[in-house]
Amino acid sequence: MNFSPAIEELIEALRCLPGVGPKSAHRMTLHLLERDREGAQGLAAALSQAVNKVDHCRRCRNFTELDICEICTDPRRDATTICVVETPADVLAIEMSGSYKGIYYVLMGHLSPIDGIGPQEIGLDLLHQRVVNENVCELILATNPTVEGEATAYYLIDLLQEEGVKVSRIAHGVPLGGELEYVDGSTLAHAISGRREVD
Amino acid sequence: MNFSPAIEELIEALRCLPGVGPKSAHRMTLHLLERDREGAQGLAAALSQAVNKVDHCRRCRNFTELDICEICTDPRRDATTICVVETPADVLAIEMSGSYKGIYYVLMGHLSPIDGIGPQEIGLDLLHQRVVNENVCELILATNPTVEGEATAYYLIDLLQEEGVKVSRIAHGVPLGGELEYVDGSTLAHAISGRREVD
Repeated sequence: MNFSPAIEELIEALRCLPGVGPKSAHRMTLHLLERDREGAQGLAAALSQAVNKVDHCRRCRNFTELDICEICTDPRRDATTICVVETPADVLAIEMSGSYKGIYYVLMGHLSPIDGIGPQEIGLDLLHQRVVNENVCELILATNPTVEGEATAYYLIDLLQEEGVKVSRIAHGVPLGGELEYVDGSTLAHAISGRREVD
Repeated sequence: MNFSPAIEELIEALRCLPGVGPKSAHRMTLHLLERDREGAQGLAAALSQAVNKVDHCRRCRNFTELDICEICTDPRRDATTICVVETPADVLAIEMSGSYKGIYYVLMGHLSPIDGIGPQEIGLDLLHQRVVNENVCELILATNPTVEGEATAYYLIDLLQEEGVKVSRIAHGVPLGGELEYVDGSTLAHAISGRREVD
């Protein structure tokens, strides 16, 4: 015996959330139906809204509901310094550290030829164009200190070698093998201020 | 700096799920937007569907999409034996143990005067009526072996004392202080077969 189809479908649908297995999905479903139907409806609306409204910024590829995101259009930010990160979560982590006033470029991933993710898939061609066409003084590489993140950083260093732009890598105060998203703000601030120019 | 409003709303909305704190909600939101927008849309649809379609069975108060649930209308089940449980999850746990062929009555809670939950809120009046008006031979009390569950069981024993119906309590093979939902099938089967009549 199982629950009715609508309940089974909800249990199954909740499995799309990271870290939610069959037991948690089951528990969440009964909790919502028994005690928080309003919350469930709110969640359904928030999911539809986010999926329909949130797209990538045309300039930096970060998530935004606007055509060009608030960071890219903020006149108080230094548009000549671009920090290259892998994900929107990394942008938030750096913003939280309060140590950076430039703009970003979000790769939405890293180079991973085995998964068919080459330079175009992570927007390196667009970034290259921006460096060539715009007034960019410095590019800070803040990809994750993992094998793929390092490979992506070195690819960018190679690509931009002839463009005469200053390219720096955030300092390895960030523990190696970790994910940028989980580093505390002061370590991140340290890593940004201690960046070294690539020669 | 925060994410755009639609993202922030989704992070907040995910907090209605049990066991999901700010960090998980954050991680889930970015996972859905970056890698599983289809899953997010499916989840939104499943949530709306479950909230709109799933209601309580008119006879046993269990969750169902029908007017009267499949267990209550199943002619192969012994309708003279009613097992009283606290939640739909308990019904599923007992069904999984495969040791019970009667029908159920789901209280959707337990007596808790301090929270304003009295006999009517958990449908004890309807259960009483059914015992009086229908051909009920035995009532198995399978409320949780917690203080509130025991209190609910004793209230029912008192209430039904004069109705001449056999009232039994599942055996305490179930560990005391635990929740029925998490007990393994064979312990539950043991508890059901070892039930003792209340005298």
